[in-house]
Parts: sequence; C-alpha cells; structure tokens
Amino acid sequence: MRGSLVPDWLCLCSWDSRRGTESLRHKDEICSGCNKKIRDEGDDRETGIEDVESLREKSVLLSGAVLDNRLASVGETKTDSHRAKAKWKLKSVVTLALTILTSSQAILIVWSKRAGKYEYSVTTANFLVETLKCAISLVALARIWKKEGVTEDNRLSTTLDEVIVYPIPAALYLVKNLLQYYIFAYVDAPGYQILKNLNIISTGVLYRIILKKRLSEIQWAAFILLTAGCTTAQLNSNSDRVLQTPFQGWVMAIVMALLSGFAGVYTEAIIKKRPSRNINVQNFWLYIFGMGFNAIAILVQDFDAVMKKGFLHGYSPITVLMIFNHALSGIAVSMVMKYADNIVKVYSTSVAMLLTAVVSVYLFGFHLSLAFFLGTTVVSVAIYLHSAGKMQR
Amino acid sequence: MRGSLVPDWLCLCSWDSRRGTESLRHKDEICSGCNKKIRDEGDDRETGIEDVESLREKSVLLSGAVLDNRLASVGETKTDSHRAKAKWKLKSVVTLALTILTSSQAILIVWSKRAGKYEYSVTTANFLVETLKCAISLVALARIWKKEGVTEDNRLSTTLDEVIVYPIPAALYLVKNLLQYYIFAYVDAPGYQILKNLNIISTGVLYRIILKKRLSEIQWAAFILLTAGCTTAQLNSNSDRVLQTPFQGWVMAIVMALLSGFAGVYTEAIIKKRPSRNINVQNFWLYIFGMGFNAIAILVQDFDAVMKKGFLHGYSPITVLMIFNHALSGIAVSMVMKYADNIVKVYSTSVAMLLTAVVSVYLFGFHLSLAFFLGTTVVSVAIYLHSAGKMQR
Repeated sequence: MRGSLVPDWLCLCSWDSRRGTESLRHKDEICSGCNKKIRDEGDDRETGIEDVESLREKSVLLSGAVLDNRLASVGETKTDSHRAKAKWKLKSVVTLALTILTSSQAILIVWSKRAGKYEYSVTTANFLVETLKCAISLVALARIWKKEGVTEDNRLSTTLDEVIVYPIPAALYLVKNLLQYYIFAYVDAPGYQILKNLNIISTGVLYRIILKKRLSEIQWAAFILLTAGCTTAQLNSNSDRVLQTPFQGWVMAIVMALLSGFAGVYTEAIIKKRPSRNINVQNFWLYIFGMGFNAIAILVQDFDAVMKKGFLHGYSPITVLMIFNHALSGIAVSMVMKYADNIVKVYSTSVAMLLTAVVSVYLFGFHLSLAFFLGTTVVSVAIYLHSAGKMQR
Repeated sequence: MRGSLVPDWLCLCSWDSRRGTESLRHKDEICSGCNKKIRDEGDDRETGIEDVESLREKSVLLSGAVLDNRLASVGETKTDSHRAKAKWKLKSVVTLALTILTSSQAILIVWSKRAGKYEYSVTTANFLVETLKCAISLVALARIWKKEGVTEDNRLSTTLDEVIVYPIPAALYLVKNLLQYYIFAYVDAPGYQILKNLNIISTGVLYRIILKKRLSEIQWAAFILLTAGCTTAQLNSNSDRVLQTPFQGWVMAIVMALLSGFAGVYTEAIIKKRPSRNINVQNFWLYIFGMGFNAIAILVQDFDAVMKKGFLHGYSPITVLMIFNHALSGIAVSMVMKYADNIVKVYSTSVAMLLTAVVSVYLFGFHLSLAFFLGTTVVSVAIYLHSAGKMQR
C-alpha cells in the first residue's frame, strides 16, 4: 500500500470535495500526495478539450471514417472548437507578454548594473513588487465587479479551505532565496547562472509527477535540449569552473532547482484547481502572502538599514522601472499558469534569455559568442520538437 | 524543361542501361543529373524491403486489420524478414567497427603528435594507406574466389561503363585536400576543426538531393542537432575567433564541405548502384584510383624529399600503426556505404569524436569541458531522435 505523502488539508486534491464535483471525477486517478482519488471538474473540462484535439491530430494519421464517429462520441460541438481557439489566442498573448517582459527585465538589470552599484535594499524592492502586484489585481477586480457584479467566482472573500495553500509558493521562494546566499560559498555568480538551468529539468519532472500531465518522448527530448541549449548559450571562458563545484554545491543547486520547480508547479496547481475562479482573486491571495514573507525578509535582513536610511533610500527612476517590470512579469507568469502551463513558461523565459542577449548587442555593444549561436540553434530545434512532439501524444 | 547537370557518361543513372534492367525501373523517377529516368534492380530491391519495414512501423500507429492486407499485398515473406534481420546485424557490425576505428585513429594522431613532430611525408603515408586497402581487398577476393569460384559479381575485370565513375571520389578528395592548404590563410587549425562540422549538414543535404532518400522532419532536426552538438563539444576559449573568419574563408569552408559531402554521397551511389557486385571488387577499383591520385600528390609535393631521403624516411612503428588503422577505417567506411549509408557514417564518426575525447581523459589526462558534456548530451539526443524519427517517415 502506498503511504500518504502530505496531510489531507495540504493536498490539492481535497479542496473541492465540498463543492459537489465528486461525481465528475475520474475514478481511476489516485493522488500521489494524500492517496485519494483526484481530478475535479476543471481537469475534466481540460482533458475533454485535449482529447478532442489529440483525436483530431490522430485523424490525420488514421483514415477519416472510423474517426468521425469517435469525434462525435466525445461530443465535439462548435462551442468547443470556438473555446479552444479563444484559449489558444489567450495562451499566445500571455506567453508573448511574459517573453517580452522577462527579456526587458534582464535588460533593465544590465542597465542598472552599468549605471552603478545597487544602492537600494533588494528586500524593500521585492516587497514593493508584491504590493504593486496586489494593487494591480485589486484595480482589475474593481473593474470586473463594476461590469459583472460580485459573483461567487470573482468575490475576494475566501474560505480557509481555499486560502490555506496560497502561502506555500511564497514560502518556497523565500527558502530558495535564503539558500541562494549560502550557495555562493561553493559556486561563483556565473557558475550559479549555469546551474540555474537545472530549474528547467526539475520543472519538467515535477510537472509530470505533481500535475500528472504527460509529455511525449519527443517532448522530453526537447526539454533536455532546452536545458542543454540554454546552458550552451551562456558558456564563456570561465564556465568550466562550474565543473569543480564541490558536492555540497551540487546538492544545494539541485535542492534549489527542486524548490523553484516545485513552487512553479504548485502555483499552477493552485491556479488550475479552480478554473472558474477569477485570476485576479487568485493573484491577490498569492501576492498578499508574498507581501507578508517579504516583510519578514526586510525585518530579518535590512531592518537596521531601513530604520537608519529610510525605506526608499537609493531608489532611482530605473529602480522604479524595474519594480514595475517585475510586477508585470509576475502577473504574466500567473496568467501563463492559468491559461497555459509551466512548460510554456519555461520555453518562454528561455527564449527571453536569448532575446536579451540579441537586444544587448544593439543596446550595450555585447558580442555574441559561437556558443550563443549554437545554444540558440539547439533551443530553436527544441521549440520545434516540443510542438512536433504533440502529434505523438 | 530542366537542364542536364552532368554528361550522360558521368551520370550514375546510365550505368546499367545495357544490363537489361530497364523494365524493372520506376517510371516516375527522373535523374537530377542527366535528366533520365532512374532506379535499377538494386534500388527496387532495397525499396521493397524498406516499404515493408515502414509499413510495419506504421502498423503500430494504425489498427491491425487494414494493414495486414497491405502487408500481404507487398509480398512480405519469411525470407524478407530474415534478410532484413541479417542486414540489420551487418549494418550494426560495420557501424561499430567504423566508430571504434575512427576513434582509435584520432587517438593515434594525438599519440604521434605527443611523441614528436611528423617526420614522415604525409603523401607517401596516404599512398601506402591506399595500397594497403587495395591489398586487403585482393586478399579478401582471393579467399572468396577459392570458396565460391569466380562469378560475374566477384570477378575483378570490369567494363569502362562500370569503372568510369570510380576515379571521381578520389579526385574530389584530392581537390579538397589541396584547398585545405589555402583555407589556413583565413582560418587557424582549431577554427578549421569547427568549420569541418559543416560536412555534416552538406552530407545530409547532398544525400537528400543526389541519392533522393528521404529524412523525416524529426530526422532533419536531429541532423541540425548533430552538427550543433559536435561543434559545441569542440568549443574552447579560442573558438570565438572562428566568427571573425573572412568571407573568403567561409566560402572555402562551404565549398570544402560540399566537396567532402559530395565525395561521400557519390561513393555511396557508386557502391549501391550494383548491390550484387562484391564489395571487395568495388573497393579495389575505388582504391586503385586512390593510389593513382596519391602518387600524383607525391610527385607534385614531395618528389625532392622522397628522392633525397627515401620513401620511408621518418617512419616509426606508430606511423605503421596509423597506416594500418587508416586502411581499416577506409574499408569500414566502404562497408558502411554498402550496408548502411552516409547518414549512419556521419553519426558513427561523430560518436567516435566524442569517444576519442573520453578515452583521451584516461590516456593523456585530458580535461573534459562543460561544453563537451553539453555537446555530448545534444549528440545523444540527436541519435535518439534520428531513430525515433524513422517512425514518422
């Protein structure tokens, strides 16, 4: 008999048990967390669309006649196809937004570094990013309430049952950020940039394990290529030092990759669990805990400096720009989690990384290395394979 | 109307026109060289086997019933399946032999470099390699004649019609080797090693164009990855200099890649054209022209030195070992052309390159770079994708 990995109250599968969706659940799926049967209405709805899509893809391979019956039997309607199209459009828009925002985020960092040292406190900036995200979510909600009125899906008030898992991603990121200080005892900063690519693999593995979503073999190959390609693109003459990383450094890097991947996948699970719940409400609750954890970080790390020099000491117009950019990127990540998934997010941020390098050539006169071209080639092929691999699922 | 690219007597398609195989040819294939209809008995036989194979692969995707009829209709018999198995075994053995021989070849080069400078003349060594290959082919033939008697397929005597294209690969390699001296005016030696990876792409493209064999989209992706992976594995701190290669250097590198790719693909075409002809006879005629062209190279480049110091001046036991290794590798290449193809050859020599690096760690205390690990990862995924891509053809 399999043991229970997490307590019932923490496990995502138990959330909607009182919303009467039990009858809609798949009978054969067992939660890997608390060992209960899982899948709720939202998952079913999604799976339904995916089934139709994959059958449509298979119809190219199979002959038409038999398939048409099967398509009819899963109840394909015009509404379904319209909904799938709208979903695809939304997915593309949020992914594009995330790519552009992440890319400009990296450019702002280079810009601010060129302008001089960081003189502001990073913890206060992080706190302001979370606050801004909260504010934006509230403004968006207010507009929706005005237009549609307050419904069960867009009301801000929540239940303990719904809200109890929202602090978890913020807490995971906090632990990861604390570990970050210690890993520099074993790896230098460029080495850490390279090890961070382990995030890609950990996200893929946890996406498979926790969200139970399948990737085809070709898509797994693409994911390995994405990791290798991103790392190759970042290679420079000092990169080989990362191979001398001591064992503890590797362990920490892997733990951090797992924490980061888990936080991402768990956020997706939280957001996807209630598909009809308004994204701005979900964001509000995610970010309010983010504010809380960052307030703790200020108290622990920067309390004296903030008391002495003030909260906004060292802020420049570029710092403000960076805060706005980070806030918008964060919201874009949430949107991608809601309307696409972690895999799309990973591809999007990888492309952003390459885009940043290309833009930096024009902005800062950077030189692109041969390794960058090779890495970009591999990442491009990975993106093609990820989409070609869909056919095989 | 399409123009004729090569004269009739040079084009491979016209060879067997007097052997009465006209009736067996595909009516819809037009030679891209001389514009005639092509494909002879051998191609048909091969295509037959491949059709059964690909249909069997598709049968996994399609449902069984319809397919069984189709399989029956292409005349699948036990003999076919037995022949396919034997062919697969032979293909694996020659590929493995090529990989090991190519890898040890590179190790011998490193070893001989470590032992001191090349003191022997490279042209005389090349001549001896060709001579040794000729001798080995003759010995193998003698054994076959003893066992099976002289038949039309294993007789050494030939017709002008058969033999006229045999000098072409040797001539192409000669031109390529001559160009090699000039390219070093634009690129340094490590840069040239990197540009040589263009051979992989040129081989793939020419394989498609000249031999008219198809690769699936996934297999093309794999081929691009193989090129990127091999180049990545060879990256070092000076690699970026290759990006400063002047335009003439790029043109020469591309021309050399095309010459090398064309020589490889043309050799395959020559060998595959007469599938029933004994490989040792085909090798004998290939190598005898190799001897001839290398004799010319001695006369042009090293005549004085050979006259003054003697033919075997500066030869050491390791030189003799290298000559034997080159000869066996050359024969392995021919075997791969006969029983597999240029694509297999390219994958095999790429794996050999990686194998050499790993063995060098133990033999010469080489350090493997992060780039090497990344390149190896990409090449491994490429190999997987090449085989996974077969399913889609």
